[in-house]
Amino acid sequence: MSTLEDIAGKAKAGTLYGIGVGPGDARYMTLRAAALVRSVDVLAYFAKTGRQGNARRIVSPLVGSGRRELRFEYPVTDEIPSGHPDYEAQIAAFYRQTAEVLEAEVRGHSSVGLLAEGDPFFYGSFMHMWRRLAPIVPVEVVPGVTGMSGCWTRANAPITWGDDILTVLPGTLDEASLTHRLAASDAAVIMKIGRNLAKVRRAVHAAGLIERAIYVERGTMPDERIVPLAEMDDVEGTYFAMVIIPGQGRRL
Amino acid sequence: MSTLEDIAGKAKAGTLYGIGVGPGDARYMTLRAAALVRSVDVLAYFAKTGRQGNARRIVSPLVGSGRRELRFEYPVTDEIPSGHPDYEAQIAAFYRQTAEVLEAEVRGHSSVGLLAEGDPFFYGSFMHMWRRLAPIVPVEVVPGVTGMSGCWTRANAPITWGDDILTVLPGTLDEASLTHRLAASDAAVIMKIGRNLAKVRRAVHAAGLIERAIYVERGTMPDERIVPLAEMDDVEGTYFAMVIIPGQGRRL
Repeated sequence: MSTLEDIAGKAKAGTLYGIGVGPGDARYMTLRAAALVRSVDVLAYFAKTGRQGNARRIVSPLVGSGRRELRFEYPVTDEIPSGHPDYEAQIAAFYRQTAEVLEAEVRGHSSVGLLAEGDPFFYGSFMHMWRRLAPIVPVEVVPGVTGMSGCWTRANAPITWGDDILTVLPGTLDEASLTHRLAASDAAVIMKIGRNLAKVRRAVHAAGLIERAIYVERGTMPDERIVPLAEMDDVEGTYFAMVIIPGQGRRL
Repeated sequence: MSTLEDIAGKAKAGTLYGIGVGPGDARYMTLRAAALVRSVDVLAYFAKTGRQGNARRIVSPLVGSGRRELRFEYPVTDEIPSGHPDYEAQIAAFYRQTAEVLEAEVRGHSSVGLLAEGDPFFYGSFMHMWRRLAPIVPVEVVPGVTGMSGCWTRANAPITWGDDILTVLPGTLDEASLTHRLAASDAAVIMKIGRNLAKVRRAVHAAGLIERAIYVERGTMPDERIVPLAEMDDVEGTYFAMVIIPGQGRRL
Protein backbone atom coordinates (compact mmCIF):
# COMPACT_ATOMS: atom_id res chain seq x y z
CA MET A 1 0.00 0.00 0.00
CA SER A 2 1.42 3.39 -1.02
CA THR A 3 1.63 6.42 1.26
CA LEU A 4 -0.22 9.57 0.26
CA GLU A 5 3.17 11.18 -0.43
CA ASP A 6 4.24 8.34 -2.75
CA ILE A 7 1.08 8.76 -4.76
CA ALA A 8 1.06 12.54 -4.91
CA GLY A 9 4.67 13.17 -6.01
CA LYS A 10 6.56 16.45 -5.70
CA ALA A 11 7.23 19.67 -7.56
CA LYS A 12 10.02 19.79 -10.17
CA ALA A 13 12.34 22.74 -10.72
CA GLY A 14 11.58 25.05 -13.62
CA THR A 15 7.89 24.25 -13.80
CA LEU A 16 4.73 26.28 -13.38
CA TYR A 17 1.90 24.45 -11.65
CA GLY A 18 -1.71 25.58 -11.99
CA ILE A 19 -3.03 24.15 -8.76
CA GLY A 20 -6.78 23.73 -8.34
CA VAL A 21 -7.33 24.16 -4.62
CA GLY A 22 -10.98 23.13 -4.62
CA PRO A 23 -14.10 24.84 -3.30
CA GLY A 24 -12.84 26.06 0.06
CA ASP A 25 -12.54 23.31 2.65
CA ALA A 26 -8.88 22.22 2.71
CA ARG A 27 -9.97 18.57 2.95
CA TYR A 28 -11.27 18.86 -0.60
CA MET A 29 -7.87 19.60 -2.09
CA THR A 30 -6.51 16.73 -4.16
CA LEU A 31 -3.47 14.74 -3.08
CA ARG A 32 -1.53 16.22 -5.99
CA ALA A 33 -2.55 19.78 -5.12
CA ALA A 34 -1.64 19.35 -1.46
CA ALA A 35 1.74 17.82 -2.30
CA LEU A 36 2.57 20.65 -4.69
CA VAL A 37 1.47 23.34 -2.25
CA ARG A 38 3.88 21.82 0.25
CA SER A 39 6.79 21.34 -2.16
CA VAL A 40 6.93 24.27 -4.61
CA ASP A 41 9.66 26.86 -4.14
CA VAL A 42 7.25 29.72 -4.71
CA LEU A 43 3.54 29.99 -3.95
CA ALA A 44 1.79 32.49 -6.21
CA TYR A 45 -1.77 33.72 -6.04
CA PHE A 46 -4.18 36.42 -7.11
CA ALA A 47 -5.99 38.57 -4.55
CA LYS A 48 -8.18 41.62 -4.35
CA THR A 49 -6.63 44.72 -2.81
CA GLY A 50 -6.81 44.55 0.96
CA ARG A 51 -7.97 40.91 1.08
CA GLN A 52 -6.01 37.81 2.01
CA GLY A 53 -6.96 36.13 -1.24
CA ASN A 54 -9.36 33.24 -1.16
CA ALA A 55 -7.12 30.63 -2.77
CA ARG A 56 -4.29 31.54 -0.39
CA ARG A 57 -6.58 31.18 2.60
CA ILE A 58 -7.75 27.75 1.47
CA VAL A 59 -4.21 26.35 1.46
CA SER A 60 -3.08 28.03 4.68
CA PRO A 61 -3.19 24.84 6.82
CA LEU A 62 -0.55 23.39 4.47
CA VAL A 63 1.88 26.29 4.32
CA GLY A 64 4.63 26.63 6.91
CA SER A 65 6.59 29.79 7.60
CA GLY A 66 9.45 30.96 5.41
CA ARG A 67 7.92 30.02 2.08
CA ARG A 68 8.52 32.49 -0.72
CA GLU A 69 5.23 33.91 -1.95
CA LEU A 70 4.15 36.07 -4.87
CA ARG A 71 0.96 37.99 -4.36
CA PHE A 72 -0.66 39.50 -7.45
CA GLU A 73 -3.22 42.18 -6.67
CA TYR A 74 -5.89 42.89 -9.24
CA PRO A 75 -5.70 46.57 -10.26
CA VAL A 76 -9.53 46.61 -10.48
CA THR A 77 -12.21 44.15 -9.46
CA ASP A 78 -15.80 45.27 -9.57
CA GLU A 79 -15.36 49.06 -9.38
CA ILE A 80 -15.58 49.01 -13.20
CA PRO A 81 -18.00 46.66 -15.05
CA SER A 82 -16.07 43.79 -16.63
CA GLY A 83 -17.23 44.59 -20.18
CA HIS A 84 -15.91 48.17 -19.99
CA PRO A 85 -12.83 48.94 -22.16
CA ASP A 86 -10.97 50.49 -19.16
CA TYR A 87 -11.46 47.29 -17.18
CA GLU A 88 -10.26 45.13 -20.04
CA ALA A 89 -7.21 47.29 -20.72
CA GLN A 90 -6.14 47.42 -17.07
CA ILE A 91 -6.67 43.72 -16.48
CA ALA A 92 -4.92 42.72 -19.69
CA ALA A 93 -1.86 44.81 -18.77
CA PHE A 94 -1.87 43.30 -15.29
CA TYR A 95 -2.07 39.75 -16.66
CA ARG A 96 0.75 40.46 -19.12
CA GLN A 97 3.04 41.76 -16.34
CA THR A 98 2.11 38.89 -14.03
CA ALA A 99 2.92 36.35 -16.74
CA GLU A 100 6.33 37.99 -17.18
CA VAL A 101 7.07 37.67 -13.46
CA LEU A 102 6.04 34.00 -13.46
CA GLU A 103 8.04 33.29 -16.60
CA ALA A 104 11.19 34.80 -15.05
CA GLU A 105 10.75 32.63 -11.93
CA VAL A 106 10.35 29.45 -13.95
CA ARG A 107 13.28 30.26 -16.24
CA GLY A 108 15.32 30.87 -13.06
CA HIS A 109 14.62 27.17 -12.22
CA SER A 110 12.06 27.70 -9.49
CA SER A 111 9.04 25.48 -9.15
CA VAL A 112 6.09 27.86 -8.94
CA GLY A 113 2.59 26.93 -7.78
CA LEU A 114 -0.10 29.33 -8.96
CA LEU A 115 -3.22 28.72 -6.90
CA ALA A 116 -6.63 28.60 -8.56
CA GLU A 117 -9.94 28.39 -6.73
CA GLY A 118 -11.96 25.33 -7.73
CA ASP A 119 -10.69 23.87 -11.00
CA PRO A 120 -8.07 25.86 -12.95
CA PHE A 121 -9.73 25.31 -16.36
CA PHE A 122 -13.26 26.23 -15.22
CA TYR A 123 -13.43 30.06 -15.35
CA GLY A 124 -10.86 32.04 -13.36
CA SER A 125 -7.60 33.90 -13.79
CA PHE A 126 -5.20 31.01 -14.15
CA MET A 127 -6.29 30.42 -17.76
CA HIS A 128 -5.02 33.86 -18.72
CA MET A 129 -1.57 32.86 -17.45
CA TRP A 130 -1.82 29.44 -19.03
CA ARG A 131 -2.47 30.80 -22.52
CA ARG A 132 0.64 33.00 -22.29
CA LEU A 133 2.98 30.55 -20.57
CA ALA A 134 2.04 27.01 -21.60
CA PRO A 135 3.52 27.57 -25.10
CA ILE A 136 6.91 28.67 -23.69
CA VAL A 137 7.65 26.97 -20.33
CA PRO A 138 6.73 23.64 -18.69
CA VAL A 139 3.24 23.89 -17.18
CA GLU A 140 1.26 21.24 -15.30
CA VAL A 141 -2.40 21.77 -14.55
CA VAL A 142 -3.90 20.00 -11.54
CA PRO A 143 -7.69 19.68 -11.75
CA GLY A 144 -9.71 20.51 -8.65
CA VAL A 145 -13.14 20.03 -7.15
CA THR A 146 -15.18 22.93 -8.58
CA GLY A 147 -16.91 25.48 -6.40
CA MET A 148 -20.22 24.22 -7.77
CA SER A 149 -19.52 20.63 -6.66
CA GLY A 150 -18.75 21.98 -3.20
CA CYS A 151 -22.01 23.95 -3.20
CA TRP A 152 -24.33 21.16 -4.33
CA THR A 153 -22.68 18.78 -1.88
CA ARG A 154 -23.23 21.13 1.04
CA ALA A 155 -26.77 21.96 -0.12
CA ASN A 156 -27.42 18.20 -0.03
CA ALA A 157 -28.70 18.49 -3.58
CA PRO A 158 -27.61 15.91 -6.16
CA ILE A 159 -27.47 18.00 -9.31
CA THR A 160 -28.00 15.62 -12.26
CA TRP A 161 -29.90 12.33 -12.43
CA GLY A 162 -30.23 9.92 -15.36
CA ASP A 163 -30.18 11.91 -18.59
CA ASP A 164 -30.53 15.39 -17.09
CA ILE A 165 -29.02 18.27 -19.04
CA LEU A 166 -27.01 20.68 -16.87
CA THR A 167 -26.57 24.32 -17.83
CA VAL A 168 -23.98 26.52 -16.11
CA LEU A 169 -24.85 30.19 -16.53
CA PRO A 170 -23.10 33.36 -15.47
CA GLY A 171 -25.38 35.66 -13.47
CA THR A 172 -24.14 38.49 -15.69
CA LEU A 173 -26.49 37.43 -18.52
CA ASP A 174 -29.46 39.69 -19.14
CA GLU A 175 -32.74 38.72 -17.51
CA ALA A 176 -34.50 37.51 -20.68
CA SER A 177 -31.57 35.26 -21.63
CA LEU A 178 -31.34 33.86 -18.12
CA THR A 179 -35.06 33.09 -18.06
CA HIS A 180 -34.98 31.46 -21.47
CA ARG A 181 -31.91 29.34 -20.66
CA LEU A 182 -33.28 28.27 -17.30
CA ALA A 183 -36.61 27.25 -18.77
CA ALA A 184 -34.75 25.00 -21.22
CA SER A 185 -32.61 23.28 -18.55
CA ASP A 186 -33.22 20.17 -16.49
CA ALA A 187 -30.64 21.28 -13.93
CA ALA A 188 -28.76 24.55 -13.63
CA VAL A 189 -26.05 26.36 -11.76
CA ILE A 190 -25.92 30.14 -11.87
CA MET A 191 -22.48 31.53 -11.02
CA LYS A 192 -21.31 35.09 -10.32
CA ILE A 193 -24.36 36.05 -8.31
CA GLY A 194 -23.07 39.13 -6.41
CA ARG A 195 -24.90 42.21 -7.65
CA ASN A 196 -26.95 40.09 -10.05
CA LEU A 197 -28.99 38.50 -7.28
CA ALA A 198 -32.27 40.37 -7.76
CA LYS A 199 -32.22 39.82 -11.52
CA VAL A 200 -31.37 36.13 -11.09
CA ARG A 201 -34.22 35.66 -8.64
CA ARG A 202 -36.67 37.24 -11.07
CA ALA A 203 -35.42 35.01 -13.89
CA VAL A 204 -35.67 31.85 -11.78
CA HIS A 205 -39.22 32.85 -10.84
CA ALA A 206 -40.17 33.52 -14.45
CA ALA A 207 -38.75 30.14 -15.49
CA GLY A 208 -40.97 28.44 -12.91
CA LEU A 209 -38.04 27.08 -10.91
CA ILE A 210 -38.11 29.10 -7.71
CA GLU A 211 -39.30 26.16 -5.57
CA ARG A 212 -36.24 24.12 -6.48
CA ALA A 213 -33.61 26.87 -6.35
CA ILE A 214 -31.04 27.06 -3.54
CA TYR A 215 -28.76 30.01 -2.81
CA VAL A 216 -25.31 28.90 -1.59
CA GLU A 217 -22.73 31.39 -0.39
CA ARG A 218 -19.13 30.36 0.34
CA GLY A 219 -20.03 26.65 0.13
CA THR A 220 -17.72 24.37 2.20
CA MET A 221 -16.10 27.37 3.92
CA PRO A 222 -16.50 28.00 7.66
CA ASP A 223 -18.95 30.86 7.08
CA GLU A 224 -21.06 29.12 4.41
CA ARG A 225 -24.71 30.07 4.07
CA ILE A 226 -27.38 27.96 2.39
CA VAL A 227 -30.92 29.32 1.92
CA PRO A 228 -33.83 28.49 -0.40
CA LEU A 229 -33.66 31.21 -3.06
CA ALA A 230 -37.34 32.01 -2.41
CA GLU A 231 -36.40 33.03 1.16
CA MET A 232 -33.25 34.95 0.26
CA ASP A 233 -34.28 38.57 0.63
CA ASP A 234 -30.87 40.25 0.53
CA VAL A 235 -30.43 42.89 -2.15
CA GLU A 236 -27.01 41.55 -3.17
CA GLY A 237 -25.27 38.20 -2.93
CA THR A 238 -21.56 37.80 -2.31
CA TYR A 239 -18.94 37.10 -4.94
CA PHE A 240 -18.70 33.48 -3.82
CA ALA A 241 -22.39 32.79 -4.16
CA MET A 242 -24.20 30.62 -6.63
CA VAL A 243 -27.71 29.38 -7.22
CA ILE A 244 -28.19 25.64 -7.60
CA ILE A 245 -31.24 24.15 -9.33
CA PRO A 246 -31.12 20.34 -8.99
CA GLY A 247 -32.41 18.13 -11.79
CA GLN A 248 -35.38 15.81 -11.48
CA GLY A 249 -34.22 13.02 -13.81
CA ARG A 250 -34.78 9.30 -13.44
CA ARG A 251 -34.84 7.96 -9.87
CA LEU A 252 -34.33 4.21 -9.76
CA MET B 1 1.60 23.41 9.68
CA SER B 2 -0.84 20.49 9.73
CA THR B 3 -0.12 17.05 8.32
CA LEU B 4 -2.33 15.75 5.52
CA GLU B 5 -3.78 13.25 7.99
CA ASP B 6 -4.68 16.00 10.50
CA ILE B 7 -6.54 17.89 7.82
CA ALA B 8 -8.32 14.92 6.27
CA GLY B 9 -9.73 13.29 9.42
CA LYS B 10 -10.97 9.71 9.72
CA ALA B 11 -14.08 7.61 9.31
CA LYS B 12 -16.60 7.36 12.16
CA ALA B 13 -18.47 4.21 13.12
CA GLY B 14 -22.07 3.87 11.97
CA THR B 15 -21.71 6.22 9.00
CA LEU B 16 -22.10 5.80 5.26
CA TYR B 17 -19.63 7.80 3.19
CA GLY B 18 -20.29 8.61 -0.45
CA ILE B 19 -16.71 9.02 -1.57
CA GLY B 20 -15.99 10.83 -4.82
CA VAL B 21 -12.81 9.19 -6.08
CA GLY B 22 -12.21 11.62 -8.93
CA PRO B 23 -11.64 11.06 -12.65
CA GLY B 24 -9.20 8.16 -12.56
CA ASP B 25 -5.69 9.18 -11.56
CA ALA B 26 -5.31 8.41 -7.83
CA ARG B 27 -3.45 11.72 -7.35
CA TYR B 28 -6.72 13.52 -8.08
CA MET B 29 -8.51 12.04 -5.09
CA THR B 30 -9.18 14.58 -2.36
CA LEU B 31 -7.45 14.40 1.02
CA ARG B 32 -10.79 13.56 2.61
CA ALA B 33 -11.54 10.81 0.09
CA ALA B 34 -8.09 9.25 0.51
CA ALA B 35 -8.31 9.34 4.31
CA LEU B 36 -11.74 7.69 4.25
CA VAL B 37 -10.68 5.02 1.78
CA ARG B 38 -7.87 4.16 4.18
CA SER B 39 -9.95 4.26 7.36
CA VAL B 40 -13.43 2.85 6.67
CA ASP B 41 -14.27 -0.62 7.99
CA VAL B 42 -15.92 -1.62 4.73
CA LEU B 43 -15.20 -0.51 1.17
CA ALA B 44 -18.25 -0.81 -1.05
CA TYR B 45 -18.51 -0.30 -4.79
CA PHE B 46 -20.55 -0.98 -7.90
CA ALA B 47 -19.12 -2.95 -10.81
CA LYS B 48 -20.17 -4.52 -14.06
CA THR B 49 -20.20 -8.32 -14.19
CA GLY B 50 -16.73 -9.64 -14.88
CA ARG B 51 -14.99 -6.27 -14.44
CA GLN B 52 -12.88 -5.03 -11.55
CA GLY B 53 -15.00 -1.93 -11.21
CA ASN B 54 -13.58 1.41 -12.17
CA ALA B 55 -13.98 3.17 -8.83
CA ARG B 56 -12.37 0.23 -7.05
CA ARG B 57 -9.44 0.29 -9.44
CA ILE B 58 -8.89 4.01 -8.90
CA VAL B 59 -8.43 3.58 -5.14
CA SER B 60 -6.32 0.42 -5.32
CA PRO B 61 -3.00 2.14 -4.46
CA LEU B 62 -4.57 3.11 -1.13
CA VAL B 63 -6.08 -0.22 -0.11
CA GLY B 64 -4.03 -2.77 1.82
CA SER B 65 -4.88 -6.44 2.16
CA GLY B 66 -7.47 -7.74 4.59
CA ARG B 67 -9.99 -4.94 4.15
CA ARG B 68 -13.61 -6.02 4.10
CA GLU B 69 -15.20 -5.19 0.75
CA LEU B 70 -18.72 -5.26 -0.62
CA ARG B 71 -18.97 -5.60 -4.37
CA PHE B 72 -22.33 -4.85 -5.95
CA GLU B 73 -22.69 -6.18 -9.48
CA TYR B 74 -25.21 -4.54 -11.75
CA PRO B 75 -27.74 -7.14 -12.93
CA VAL B 76 -27.81 -5.41 -16.36
CA THR B 77 -25.72 -2.67 -17.91
CA ASP B 78 -26.16 -1.95 -21.57
CA GLU B 79 -27.65 -5.27 -22.78
CA ILE B 80 -31.06 -3.58 -22.34
CA PRO B 81 -31.59 0.12 -23.25
CA SER B 82 -31.86 2.22 -20.09
CA GLY B 83 -35.36 3.53 -20.89
CA HIS B 84 -36.80 -0.01 -21.23
CA PRO B 85 -39.19 -1.08 -18.41
CA ASP B 86 -37.24 -4.34 -17.86
CA TYR B 87 -34.06 -2.37 -17.29
CA GLU B 88 -35.72 0.01 -14.88
CA ALA B 89 -37.40 -2.78 -12.92
CA GLN B 90 -34.22 -4.85 -12.59
CA ILE B 91 -32.04 -1.88 -11.63
CA ALA B 92 -34.58 -0.54 -9.14
CA ALA B 93 -34.78 -3.93 -7.39
CA PHE B 94 -30.99 -4.14 -7.35
CA TYR B 95 -30.65 -0.64 -5.85
CA ARG B 96 -33.28 -1.46 -3.22
CA GLN B 97 -31.46 -4.63 -2.15
CA THR B 98 -28.10 -2.87 -2.17
CA ALA B 99 -29.45 -0.09 0.03
CA GLU B 100 -30.70 -2.72 2.49
CA VAL B 101 -27.25 -4.31 2.71
CA LEU B 102 -25.61 -0.91 3.28
CA GLU B 103 -28.21 0.05 5.87
CA ALA B 104 -27.60 -3.17 7.83
CA GLU B 105 -23.83 -2.51 7.83
CA VAL B 106 -24.23 1.04 9.09
CA ARG B 107 -26.77 0.04 11.76
CA GLY B 108 -24.26 -2.63 12.85
CA HIS B 109 -21.85 0.27 13.59
CA SER B 110 -19.53 -0.14 10.64
CA SER B 111 -18.11 2.81 8.78
CA VAL B 112 -18.86 2.13 5.13
CA GLY B 113 -17.27 3.93 2.18
CA LEU B 114 -19.27 3.66 -1.03
CA LEU B 115 -17.02 4.67 -3.91
CA ALA B 116 -18.32 6.96 -6.65
CA GLU B 117 -16.45 7.81 -9.82
CA GLY B 118 -15.92 11.55 -10.22
CA ASP B 119 -18.26 13.52 -7.96
CA PRO B 120 -21.00 11.58 -6.11
CA PHE B 121 -23.74 14.13 -6.84
CA PHE B 122 -23.00 14.48 -10.57
CA TYR B 123 -24.78 11.55 -12.27
CA GLY B 124 -23.96 8.03 -11.10
CA SER B 125 -25.29 5.27 -8.88
CA PHE B 126 -24.44 6.70 -5.47
CA MET B 127 -27.38 9.10 -5.63
CA HIS B 128 -29.81 6.19 -5.75
CA MET B 129 -28.37 4.96 -2.45
CA TRP B 130 -28.29 8.46 -1.00
CA ARG B 131 -32.00 9.08 -1.60
CA ARG B 132 -32.88 5.85 0.24
CA LEU B 133 -30.35 6.08 3.08
CA ALA B 134 -29.70 9.76 3.86
CA PRO B 135 -33.14 10.10 5.52
CA ILE B 136 -32.50 7.15 7.88
CA VAL B 137 -28.77 6.80 8.71
CA PRO B 138 -25.79 9.21 8.99
CA VAL B 139 -24.42 9.92 5.51
CA GLU B 140 -21.48 12.13 4.54
CA VAL B 141 -20.90 13.01 0.89
CA VAL B 142 -17.34 13.85 -0.20
CA PRO B 143 -17.24 15.85 -3.44
CA GLY B 144 -14.73 14.80 -6.08
CA VAL B 145 -13.04 16.07 -9.20
CA THR B 146 -15.50 15.23 -11.98
CA GLY B 147 -14.59 13.06 -14.94
CA MET B 148 -15.13 16.07 -17.18
CA SER B 149 -12.59 18.19 -15.25
CA GLY B 150 -10.10 15.35 -15.67
CA CYS B 151 -10.83 15.20 -19.40
CA TRP B 152 -10.52 18.90 -20.17
CA THR B 153 -7.35 19.08 -18.09
CA ARG B 154 -5.74 16.24 -20.02
CA ALA B 155 -7.00 17.61 -23.34
CA ASN B 156 -5.25 20.86 -22.39
CA ALA B 157 -8.50 22.65 -23.10
CA PRO B 158 -9.75 25.30 -20.64
CA ILE B 159 -13.49 24.86 -20.88
CA THR B 160 -15.08 28.21 -19.92
CA TRP B 161 -13.72 31.74 -20.25
CA GLY B 162 -15.27 35.00 -19.08
CA ASP B 163 -19.04 34.72 -19.34
CA ASP B 164 -19.21 31.47 -21.34
CA ILE B 165 -22.28 29.31 -20.84
CA LEU B 166 -21.48 25.62 -20.37
CA THR B 167 -23.96 22.89 -21.31
CA VAL B 168 -23.47 19.31 -20.17
CA LEU B 169 -25.41 16.93 -22.39
CA PRO B 170 -25.93 13.17 -22.27
CA GLY B 171 -25.06 11.53 -25.60
CA THR B 172 -28.33 9.60 -25.28
CA LEU B 173 -30.31 12.65 -26.51
CA ASP B 174 -31.74 12.41 -30.02
CA GLU B 175 -29.73 13.95 -32.82
CA ALA B 176 -31.96 16.98 -33.40
CA SER B 177 -31.95 17.89 -29.69
CA LEU B 178 -28.19 17.46 -29.47
CA THR B 179 -27.65 19.68 -32.51
CA HIS B 180 -30.01 22.35 -31.23
CA ARG B 181 -28.47 22.38 -27.73
CA LEU B 182 -24.92 22.46 -29.04
CA ALA B 183 -25.67 25.33 -31.40
CA ALA B 184 -26.97 27.34 -28.42
CA SER B 185 -23.89 26.66 -26.20
CA ASP B 186 -20.64 28.58 -25.80
CA ALA B 187 -18.95 25.52 -24.35
CA ALA B 188 -20.19 21.95 -24.06
CA VAL B 189 -19.41 18.55 -22.65
CA ILE B 190 -21.17 15.50 -24.06
CA MET B 191 -21.16 12.54 -21.68
CA LYS B 192 -22.14 8.90 -22.20
CA ILE B 193 -20.64 8.66 -25.67
CA GLY B 194 -20.33 4.86 -26.06
CA ARG B 195 -22.70 3.68 -28.77
CA ASN B 196 -23.86 7.25 -29.37
CA LEU B 197 -20.58 8.29 -30.99
CA ALA B 198 -21.70 8.42 -34.62
CA LYS B 199 -24.84 10.38 -33.75
CA VAL B 200 -22.88 12.78 -31.54
CA ARG B 201 -20.35 13.40 -34.30
CA ARG B 202 -23.12 14.22 -36.77
CA ALA B 203 -24.74 16.60 -34.26
CA VAL B 204 -21.44 18.36 -33.53
CA HIS B 205 -20.88 18.74 -37.28
CA ALA B 206 -24.38 20.09 -37.83
CA ALA B 207 -23.90 22.61 -35.02
CA GLY B 208 -20.74 23.88 -36.73
CA LEU B 209 -18.48 22.87 -33.84
CA ILE B 210 -16.48 19.98 -35.26
CA GLU B 211 -13.22 21.98 -35.46
CA ARG B 212 -13.27 22.64 -31.72
CA ALA B 213 -14.46 19.23 -30.51
CA ILE B 214 -12.13 16.80 -28.72
CA TYR B 215 -12.85 13.14 -28.02
CA VAL B 216 -11.41 12.03 -24.65
CA GLU B 217 -11.54 8.41 -23.55
CA ARG B 218 -10.58 7.36 -20.00
CA GLY B 219 -9.12 10.81 -19.25
CA THR B 220 -6.33 10.77 -16.58
CA MET B 221 -6.18 6.95 -16.63
CA PRO B 222 -3.08 5.09 -17.85
CA ASP B 223 -4.76 4.13 -21.12
CA GLU B 224 -6.32 7.52 -21.87
CA ARG B 225 -6.88 8.50 -25.48
CA ILE B 226 -7.36 12.04 -26.76
CA VAL B 227 -8.23 12.71 -30.41
CA PRO B 228 -9.83 15.59 -32.31
CA LEU B 229 -13.41 14.43 -32.86
CA ALA B 230 -13.04 15.13 -36.58
CA GLU B 231 -10.32 12.44 -36.72
CA MET B 232 -12.10 9.91 -34.54
CA ASP B 233 -13.29 7.30 -37.02
CA ASP B 234 -14.27 4.50 -34.63
CA VAL B 235 -17.83 3.29 -34.89
CA GLU B 236 -18.31 3.30 -31.11
CA GLY B 237 -16.70 5.13 -28.21
CA THR B 238 -16.11 3.57 -24.81
CA TYR B 239 -18.28 4.04 -21.76
CA PHE B 240 -15.69 6.38 -20.24
CA ALA B 241 -15.56 8.68 -23.22
CA MET B 242 -16.75 12.23 -23.56
CA VAL B 243 -16.60 14.99 -26.10
CA ILE B 244 -15.27 18.36 -24.94
CA ILE B 245 -16.05 21.59 -26.79
CA PRO B 246 -14.08 24.45 -25.19
CA GLY B 247 -15.57 27.93 -25.00
CA GLN B 248 -14.16 30.96 -26.74
CA GLY B 249 -15.06 33.63 -24.19
CA ARG B 250 -13.08 36.70 -23.24
CA ARG B 251 -9.29 36.34 -23.30
CA LEU B 252 -7.55 39.05 -21.33
